[in-house]
Amino acid sequence: MKALTYHGPGRRTWGDVPDPVVVDPEDAVVRVDAVTICGTDLHILKGDVPEVAEGRVLGHEAVGTVVETGDGVRTVAVGDRVLVSCISACGRCAYCRRGMYGQCTGGGGWVLGHLVDGTQAEYVRTPFADNSLHRLPEGVADETALVFADILPTAFEVGVRNGRVGPGDTVAVVGAGPIGLAAIATARLYGPRRIIAVDLAADRLKAARRAGADEVLRGDGDTGASVRALGPDGMGVDVAIEAVGVPDTFELCTRVVRPGGRVANVGVHGKPAVLHLEDLWIKDVTITTGLVDTGSTPLLLDLLAAERLDVDGLVTHRFGLDEMQEAYDVFADAADTGALKVALFRT
Amino acid sequence: MKALTYHGPGRRTWGDVPDPVVVDPEDAVVRVDAVTICGTDLHILKGDVPEVAEGRVLGHEAVGTVVETGDGVRTVAVGDRVLVSCISACGRCAYCRRGMYGQCTGGGGWVLGHLVDGTQAEYVRTPFADNSLHRLPEGVADETALVFADILPTAFEVGVRNGRVGPGDTVAVVGAGPIGLAAIATARLYGPRRIIAVDLAADRLKAARRAGADEVLRGDGDTGASVRALGPDGMGVDVAIEAVGVPDTFELCTRVVRPGGRVANVGVHGKPAVLHLEDLWIKDVTITTGLVDTGSTPLLLDLLAAERLDVDGLVTHRFGLDEMQEAYDVFADAADTGALKVALFRT
Repeated sequence: MKALTYHGPGRRTWGDVPDPVVVDPEDAVVRVDAVTICGTDLHILKGDVPEVAEGRVLGHEAVGTVVETGDGVRTVAVGDRVLVSCISACGRCAYCRRGMYGQCTGGGGWVLGHLVDGTQAEYVRTPFADNSLHRLPEGVADETALVFADILPTAFEVGVRNGRVGPGDTVAVVGAGPIGLAAIATARLYGPRRIIAVDLAADRLKAARRAGADEVLRGDGDTGASVRALGPDGMGVDVAIEAVGVPDTFELCTRVVRPGGRVANVGVHGKPAVLHLEDLWIKDVTITTGLVDTGSTPLLLDLLAAERLDVDGLVTHRFGLDEMQEAYDVFADAADTGALKVALFRT
Repeated sequence: MKALTYHGPGRRTWGDVPDPVVVDPEDAVVRVDAVTICGTDLHILKGDVPEVAEGRVLGHEAVGTVVETGDGVRTVAVGDRVLVSCISACGRCAYCRRGMYGQCTGGGGWVLGHLVDGTQAEYVRTPFADNSLHRLPEGVADETALVFADILPTAFEVGVRNGRVGPGDTVAVVGAGPIGLAAIATARLYGPRRIIAVDLAADRLKAARRAGADEVLRGDGDTGASVRALGPDGMGVDVAIEAVGVPDTFELCTRVVRPGGRVANVGVHGKPAVLHLEDLWIKDVTITTGLVDTGSTPLLLDLLAAERLDVDGLVTHRFGLDEMQEAYDVFADAADTGALKVALFRT
């Protein structure tokens, strides 16, 4: 089959690799009907995720059709249309038993396109299929479902829930890419008073408005003061969600929260940041990091079905699966192309 | 009266200052019967807390007797023996109404020995006396009560409660000075599985054992690996409490927590730290900072009275009030003197 493989920083190939097969009784093999590219894949290609081996098939998000299952698989069957979640979970380890599937120590966690071959291919082997695939309801388009494989639960769990967004809160979302937009959309579920989006790109700020941001700010040297001024009593925001993954945006988040505020880091980082404890030690600030667990995926799919969650506009560019390299170019050059999520479909 | 005043980094004087008087109807003036020196006072003298003005009387912890009250004071009266809490609270602002007295925007918060004259004196004016003084039960010695002015509630609220210590947790306390020892004593209230104390000083590690630490480690280059190995499955500890206030000890805390673990910073910092987001982004870590609110002070005094909390051994050196300079020298040179808390008494 064809697949996108990683060959060290900056090097990717679209070419032939062996077809995946069931190797464990809990595996399923899924035919990929739709797949996308994540900002994390770009971090991998920058060399920020050194555990990714040469030759690894990238990708951890897909919608597809089950074509083979191991003997131990109970909840999905050949022919089922499924969401391939970015997180696999053994369901048995101490972390899984606490619902922390992202930290699974039994061979799951974020493994697809990271430690095992991923979804940017014609077929993918999904370990622990019962806890890693979600059967999709009728009537949800592949393109819509696709953003529930990673960005919706990630933005919701690691951004909105870790940041403890609550009624009346002022929330700053720093970075209005796909994760930031999904954070805006899911923050709205909690009845915030005001959502502020910060980005460098005018078209992303427009998308932020469409997703539900009340204020949008183009990031520059004074952004910190402008965001703080929009918080209650001008003292800063209740929650700042970091959705970029560079030191500057993280440090901006720590500057704009009010005393007692929360900084929820969602971005994938390749470098350390400076933590200004000389200012923060006294401020009752909470900072969280996290990998998505995807425990919220069924809830989010339910909210979609109930029309309580609008994810339109996240996918901006569409390709055939064999246009993978072009799709990467468009996605990586988002500043010029205006790409948010790109979707690739089986042809 | 005599008082200890600050005159810029490294310079302190014991000398005559005007007697304090009631200036606001909610003030009380308290005769200082016992007072102590805090690590924070040493940070002030290092220049880490630049808002402290020249000539300021330092000190934010005392036990004393009310000698004058303003017309608006309701809960304490002349002659009452009281604990002077490190935190004053207007009780009316948005932060006070949430119980975040440390962040009071109505003129309270940590003001004593910081923004107004403090307790290292013969008398002290205490703003918002109703919310800043606690009447002491009979039978609690001045020396015992003294550690409830700051270190017990600080260690409990900012360390143990922010770190969400729970039953079965493995807890690392980095720094076994007075705050670290109080963190160990109050962490025990939650039924942890194992408490590990880390310090450079052998006598502090002995004190940590007495306070309830199960394991003690002398900090060196391998401390991080040793602490991690003591956590569940050798993956790190559930909670790391930073009780020193320098970048190295904070960074150690972020290295020793397990995935899903919590770092509760209690130390007063004068410099930024490096936050290794390239490792931490994926680890579901929560980092908290905070100033004590002292909402727990009545509870802690109750636990003391009920003999559920043992704070013996925290005060190691005793002086007369007019030996203030000598007491500072002994406290500042704790590495040689073995001082934990010093107590000074009216003579």
